[in-house]
Amino acid sequence: MSKGLPKRSENYSEWYNEIVKRADLAENSAVKGCMVIKPYGFSIWEKMQRALDDMFKATGHVNAYFPLFVPKSFLEKEEEHAEGFAKECAVVTHYRLKSDGQGGLMVDPEAKLTEELIVRPTSETVIWNAYKNWIQSWRDLPLLINQWANVVRWEMRTRLFLRTTEFLWQEGHTAHATEQEAVEETERMLSVYADFAENWMAMPVVQGLKTPSERFAGAVETYCIEALMQDGKALQSGTSHFLGQNFARSFDVKFVNKENQLEYAWATSWGVSTRLMGALIMAHSDDNGLVLPPKLAPTQVVIIPIYKTPEDLAKISEKIFPIFEELKAAGISVKYDDDDKQRSGWKFAEYELKGIPVRLAMGMRDLESSTIEVARRDTLSKESRPVDDIAAHVKNLLDEIQANIYDKALKFREENTFVVDTWDQFKDQIEKGGFILAHWDGTAETEEKIKDETKATIRCIPLNSTEEAGKDVYSGKESAKRVVFARAY
Amino acid sequence: MSKGLPKRSENYSEWYNEIVKRADLAENSAVKGCMVIKPYGFSIWEKMQRALDDMFKATGHVNAYFPLFVPKSFLEKEEEHAEGFAKECAVVTHYRLKSDGQGGLMVDPEAKLTEELIVRPTSETVIWNAYKNWIQSWRDLPLLINQWANVVRWEMRTRLFLRTTEFLWQEGHTAHATEQEAVEETERMLSVYADFAENWMAMPVVQGLKTPSERFAGAVETYCIEALMQDGKALQSGTSHFLGQNFARSFDVKFVNKENQLEYAWATSWGVSTRLMGALIMAHSDDNGLVLPPKLAPTQVVIIPIYKTPEDLAKISEKIFPIFEELKAAGISVKYDDDDKQRSGWKFAEYELKGIPVRLAMGMRDLESSTIEVARRDTLSKESRPVDDIAAHVKNLLDEIQANIYDKALKFREENTFVVDTWDQFKDQIEKGGFILAHWDGTAETEEKIKDETKATIRCIPLNSTEEAGKDVYSGKESAKRVVFARAY
Repeated sequence: MSKGLPKRSENYSEWYNEIVKRADLAENSAVKGCMVIKPYGFSIWEKMQRALDDMFKATGHVNAYFPLFVPKSFLEKEEEHAEGFAKECAVVTHYRLKSDGQGGLMVDPEAKLTEELIVRPTSETVIWNAYKNWIQSWRDLPLLINQWANVVRWEMRTRLFLRTTEFLWQEGHTAHATEQEAVEETERMLSVYADFAENWMAMPVVQGLKTPSERFAGAVETYCIEALMQDGKALQSGTSHFLGQNFARSFDVKFVNKENQLEYAWATSWGVSTRLMGALIMAHSDDNGLVLPPKLAPTQVVIIPIYKTPEDLAKISEKIFPIFEELKAAGISVKYDDDDKQRSGWKFAEYELKGIPVRLAMGMRDLESSTIEVARRDTLSKESRPVDDIAAHVKNLLDEIQANIYDKALKFREENTFVVDTWDQFKDQIEKGGFILAHWDGTAETEEKIKDETKATIRCIPLNSTEEAGKDVYSGKESAKRVVFARAY
Repeated sequence: MSKGLPKRSENYSEWYNEIVKRADLAENSAVKGCMVIKPYGFSIWEKMQRALDDMFKATGHVNAYFPLFVPKSFLEKEEEHAEGFAKECAVVTHYRLKSDGQGGLMVDPEAKLTEELIVRPTSETVIWNAYKNWIQSWRDLPLLINQWANVVRWEMRTRLFLRTTEFLWQEGHTAHATEQEAVEETERMLSVYADFAENWMAMPVVQGLKTPSERFAGAVETYCIEALMQDGKALQSGTSHFLGQNFARSFDVKFVNKENQLEYAWATSWGVSTRLMGALIMAHSDDNGLVLPPKLAPTQVVIIPIYKTPEDLAKISEKIFPIFEELKAAGISVKYDDDDKQRSGWKFAEYELKGIPVRLAMGMRDLESSTIEVARRDTLSKESRPVDDIAAHVKNLLDEIQANIYDKALKFREENTFVVDTWDQFKDQIEKGGFILAHWDGTAETEEKIKDETKATIRCIPLNSTEEAGKDVYSGKESAKRVVFARAY
């Protein structure tokens, strides 16, 4: 199956598309820009959802559900927000079709809505309109609410998972009594995202602040996590916004504070989406297919018997059964593939393509010597191990693979992060890819010019960067710290 | 809080609305007919989702995700389906707004879609269009796929949970190589729904077939589960459709069967929705508020300390801590409410309103005598128990409550199911409510007349009913079995 998968080094873009397709992750639908997430892809997304949801709940959040439709007048209320989303939204104008008299259907002109409805591109407006009735006193705060939902942003150029017209995401929307609490929440959720990216997705990220021109429409401050893909391009993997009192003001959400004064509530919102699937694929996979970190692999271990006769299969199965049960009992998701429709060579390639972290195989010779072949997806290495302690070995091995995938990605990022001080160096390096640490004078004008000339954007102003006097790499003006530049998805 | 909750016997409809509101389950949004599912309501829905999802997976199904939008031409392909859904759908006609030059936004006439998109009212068409590429051979079958999603059906008269323009649901869509397999799947999923309704929701249901006029638009046969609410009205709680080859034909989904012949695939679809929340509320709740079966209660046990001084609280807390830990360790979701902002009387009423199955309370006198007060939400009875074996007692009690709620609902249904043989009896009984078992001549004409005259519909032709010669209760014509009539939500 994996025969003919394009090589990353030759055509990265085609390599990505083919992995998405051949590993059965997703496909384009008949509706332009909307994807079908296929069962295998969705099972990975479900693992992500479960892990994130547990983290949200552990930090005090609860889930709720708000309407799909945003009245047009809601979008108008927050000016920047409207500006940011009006140009790319699906608009519902009618609520009925009727027969066109020729066997087809047509929009019923009698069923025109008095106010158009927008399919939510994000839910700040709908949610803050509801919060208006939920918040009266400081006792009602904080509100720590998350929603798992589909959203629609009309995109002209789409790519499976990375940029689609409809996508799945979660959006947290919190309300607080003080500015400080809201800022703390914004930062807390950024660190939850970083924790998830690094410890579940095995993908190192830089935590930072967006520049004003890259902020979420309506935010006072946007925090983000940025990851480096194997082609040297950056991928924004999650954002957390401090919204100040902007939405409270637009929707008139006031509360009586402890000093008995009426005040606008403070807001945050934060989200990650099915885009993370794209990040996961591009961060780790290789020319043989998908590489999944064990913690997000729907099947962590596959066991394949290699046999010629039903009698041989029975003998191997008898030996494997207790191993299978022991792995299952240890909480490992394991599949025993004794399907006789496919040859074992085909199966090996197929499970490699699908990124199963560990493959165990047993043939008659292994059976005789009480050994089993253990293959790692991350390193593609194989070894023969005694059957006796195989369950314990596999359990450790999964942890080792999780750590190794992370280390490999971190090493890649370190090797592809460049401190750059001259404009020539900058132009040269940006063509080669990677994160560029360079000085920036803090103006939107310079940021814009650099983008125009090189397609590089400021991915973020890293949170952990130290002050360091220098000169802007483009304008030569004074700068107090380096920021991260890259070309990005 | 529960003061002034309307009584079921006086105003059932108002009682329902007030429970939904006061127990913080849901509320209407600014968009007509669309609801906000509030955190407490959503946490119950999440428990339902988890239980159902586990049951779907245990029967071999996997999840996937298909687009929100249905091209108008897809709806046109299956005639009955189009007929059924065209009249109540949200239509997207444009993909952009622009400034109206007066500080507001308007639909951009330049951004008109060449083909209108319908917000999915159900996904048969979108999914079968995808299946066309997934199914070539009998080896690709069966496809056993489920989707959790939001859907929109434009409703003129809505009620929270029971009938809303947007609702959440799951929709299973399966494809099979033979008619028999598809029928078996349809029946299997009906029994999964019945199992869930009875063993999780504690709500007895009648399993049956819909009459042709009540079938899903595009189905060959619709199976359903019907429950009886406390006001004597029926509520359809889940449907499972055998779709024959209708959608395969409309979307040209053919496969090579084992005999090497090209054949259309056989289909089923099945769904339950947030409507189940309405059923759950109406099946069990009382004049004090919500009554939740323990298996679906987000919090199963609440422990309330009754104290005057911080010292007393410390003593009680010390005694309660090991009980709390023991309950948690037993997998019971338990909350210790030592919040001092509310008095214990207020808390008692509040937890009653929210339907927490078991309430434990300990005051100083209990502490001295090493006892604890145990209150059951279902019977509203209280008793003092020794602290020693309280965790074991509570564990058993939760099972007992689950069984008791079911038994009570079953007894109610049995007492409100009537065998009726004359038209006068029928007209009289339908006003009083309940399930009526009566003979029907099998014609749509009689069904329609009965509906016109009494607002009663045939809820289903029960699967377990025995043949019994008789006369139609309305027309007097020959009939071979009784069907279930009722007024319904």
